[in-house]
Amino acid sequence: MRLSRYFLPVLKETPAEAEIVSHQLMLRAGMIQQLSAGIYSWLPLGWRVLQKVEAIVREEMDRSGAIEILMPTIQPADLWRESGRYDAYGKEMLRIKDRHERDMLFGPTNEENVTDIFRRHVKSYRQLPLNLYHIQWKFRDEVRPRFGVMRGREFLMKDAYSFDLDLEGARRSYDAYFVAYLRAFHRMGLTAIPMVADTGPIGGDMSHEFQILASTGESEVFFDAAFEDIDFGDPNLDPERLKALYAAADEKHDPATCPVPKDRLRSGRGIEVGHIFYFGTKYSEPMNATVSTADGADVPVHMGSYGIGVSRLVGALIEANHDAAGIVWPESVAPFKVGIVTIRHDDEAANALAEDLYRKLTGAGVEVLWDDRDERAGAKFATMDLIGLPHQVTVGPRGAKSGRVEVKDRRGGAKDELSLDAAIERLAR
Amino acid sequence: MRLSRYFLPVLKETPAEAEIVSHQLMLRAGMIQQLSAGIYSWLPLGWRVLQKVEAIVREEMDRSGAIEILMPTIQPADLWRESGRYDAYGKEMLRIKDRHERDMLFGPTNEENVTDIFRRHVKSYRQLPLNLYHIQWKFRDEVRPRFGVMRGREFLMKDAYSFDLDLEGARRSYDAYFVAYLRAFHRMGLTAIPMVADTGPIGGDMSHEFQILASTGESEVFFDAAFEDIDFGDPNLDPERLKALYAAADEKHDPATCPVPKDRLRSGRGIEVGHIFYFGTKYSEPMNATVSTADGADVPVHMGSYGIGVSRLVGALIEANHDAAGIVWPESVAPFKVGIVTIRHDDEAANALAEDLYRKLTGAGVEVLWDDRDERAGAKFATMDLIGLPHQVTVGPRGAKSGRVEVKDRRGGAKDELSLDAAIERLAR
Repeated sequence: MRLSRYFLPVLKETPAEAEIVSHQLMLRAGMIQQLSAGIYSWLPLGWRVLQKVEAIVREEMDRSGAIEILMPTIQPADLWRESGRYDAYGKEMLRIKDRHERDMLFGPTNEENVTDIFRRHVKSYRQLPLNLYHIQWKFRDEVRPRFGVMRGREFLMKDAYSFDLDLEGARRSYDAYFVAYLRAFHRMGLTAIPMVADTGPIGGDMSHEFQILASTGESEVFFDAAFEDIDFGDPNLDPERLKALYAAADEKHDPATCPVPKDRLRSGRGIEVGHIFYFGTKYSEPMNATVSTADGADVPVHMGSYGIGVSRLVGALIEANHDAAGIVWPESVAPFKVGIVTIRHDDEAANALAEDLYRKLTGAGVEVLWDDRDERAGAKFATMDLIGLPHQVTVGPRGAKSGRVEVKDRRGGAKDELSLDAAIERLAR
Repeated sequence: MRLSRYFLPVLKETPAEAEIVSHQLMLRAGMIQQLSAGIYSWLPLGWRVLQKVEAIVREEMDRSGAIEILMPTIQPADLWRESGRYDAYGKEMLRIKDRHERDMLFGPTNEENVTDIFRRHVKSYRQLPLNLYHIQWKFRDEVRPRFGVMRGREFLMKDAYSFDLDLEGARRSYDAYFVAYLRAFHRMGLTAIPMVADTGPIGGDMSHEFQILASTGESEVFFDAAFEDIDFGDPNLDPERLKALYAAADEKHDPATCPVPKDRLRSGRGIEVGHIFYFGTKYSEPMNATVSTADGADVPVHMGSYGIGVSRLVGALIEANHDAAGIVWPESVAPFKVGIVTIRHDDEAANALAEDLYRKLTGAGVEVLWDDRDERAGAKFATMDLIGLPHQVTVGPRGAKSGRVEVKDRRGGAKDELSLDAAIERLAR
């Protein structure tokens, strides 16, 4: 993409309304624009990152065996009356009347909808396990939305739902999500710590929150140093071993009873980006979602739900990846992998070299943003640092004479002067 | 995908509420499920087709130079008061009050939102032309939603918006969409006829509807036989030549004044799947979206909007591609390219051959649905015909002995007995 033909409305000033760094940087880098409190338009750069995050989540869901569907945003209130949640849910539910005065709502989550799909089509234990997920916009009418996409009202969530015959099956489903989540966050360059969360009246150990570490995180978290040695990219991650490791948020951590010796205890700031939760027959019983067993009995299906805050992750990624100059994207979620800067717009040799590089890299499937605008070099460098592309290539009149370019890693800042071919070889791999 | 692990809830009976063939087949093939009047969940098979259609539309938008963003579903009423449409829009607008009693709405379209983005960031003619698009769920509260996804209340639309300095620039943008639309529909295997549509008070010739031909179409359309000779895949399609060809819907066609001689006049049934529209300064004037000209004057920007009904296209595709046995997907939008049927579940050799085929095809990047269930062969064939995968491969005990399989084209029904290697070569290309 040539920047002269792109739409990247960066801001020079930090907007006063943005309290946290990810919100500030998303506004400054032209990633989002607020339309109404807690409701954002995703501008081209932000939309690219959101799609990258979404794609990783989708791939890991598919790999885990979950099947993608898409449920709508608007739901009928009657379905939520069946589960008892229509009255129980507070003012965060956006309640709507349609033109026929029927009670509708903008879904804050989809347990009722997916249970309705299940009960209409699945009748036998032989059709289990079943895991369905979707990635869809939700609405929660927060009383005071803030922190940009970290606590918006309209937000993109991946929510998956497991259906199993019994607790044993549900545990297998649960474990598959547990591993898929760690893998997804790891692929985004994030360290995610799973922590036991409240299960409410159901009890048991089948509820975990996933907190990613960022110095600007919302809450303090404590965890076993063993987490630092885990290879979360390992295809054979053992969920039981990970669940056995100590991890707790501030309000639950008690130094007096913490089982981890002091020298093996780590702490950091965490941001919640996922939650997995087994809730048994909470919805299947009132909604009559039953399956026949091998013995011919009818039993309510065991369910769990598994959420990842996809739009929230974009903010969380920035909280965990930035410096004074701007965002520092991990390569897997970067809007473009490479940025090219031509430092003299009117130099023909430099422009020709940049164009050659641009064509060869895009031809090799590399996503490139070329700042070909007639702007001062300093402004271009500042923009590149702000938007945080992993690799920046500078093409100037001097280098152009000898066919050389400067390649800088955004993270760490290491610079190398390379021939065009060497630069392409490094950037296209 | 193995069907035993998939979620494909096909129906034996045609649901009584479905009046048209695409609605019937989408329900029978387990593609969608109604949640409320005009609101559907997309089940796995339907979701895959919707994604294919969306991907083609996205690729053709990107190729045309439009830049993707994502605007939210919920919008503040105040923005629509600026354009005057909040009061003008009728009951089809889903009006909402949030917890603070602020007037909001579920966007039926996004002219106001995109104009607001524009006016905040674009100030100079040098930043033009600008073309922004998004693919987002819309809501129109139809009084009597029907025909499944063809006239739903919640529907997926691609809407693009052009911003130009003047009419001449707007015409260039318009022509780019005109060509991109024809190319997108052509890639879906559809013949789309562009017809001049009403421009309202603005007048002029810059409004076209795109009607695809299907024997079950909504309205009769008449067009010049020259359309039949156009290669819509041609990268150098000439929009002016196509616009000059006669095409008109029933209510506008008058045999007495039709300029096309009878022997060159064709007619068919059409389904509207896209609409492009230049509307000048209709929104930019009241909303103060101005740019400075080279002379230093401030002028309201010229705009157009360009819609494709993405979810509607899934229905339209079926209207144009079905037979008595079910759907006949064009390959580019098929949920899977190949279906494998094993006709004796208990035959080891057949199963081994099918598995070998399945692995090799998926390994080659081909999307395959393997019906590996313990079901009668007749039921499996009926399901395959119903869901309409372009290529069906039957693996039976007899063929397995000699390593041969039967490959059937869903469209046309031609069958060939092939060796495994020959089948793979044909299906993987």
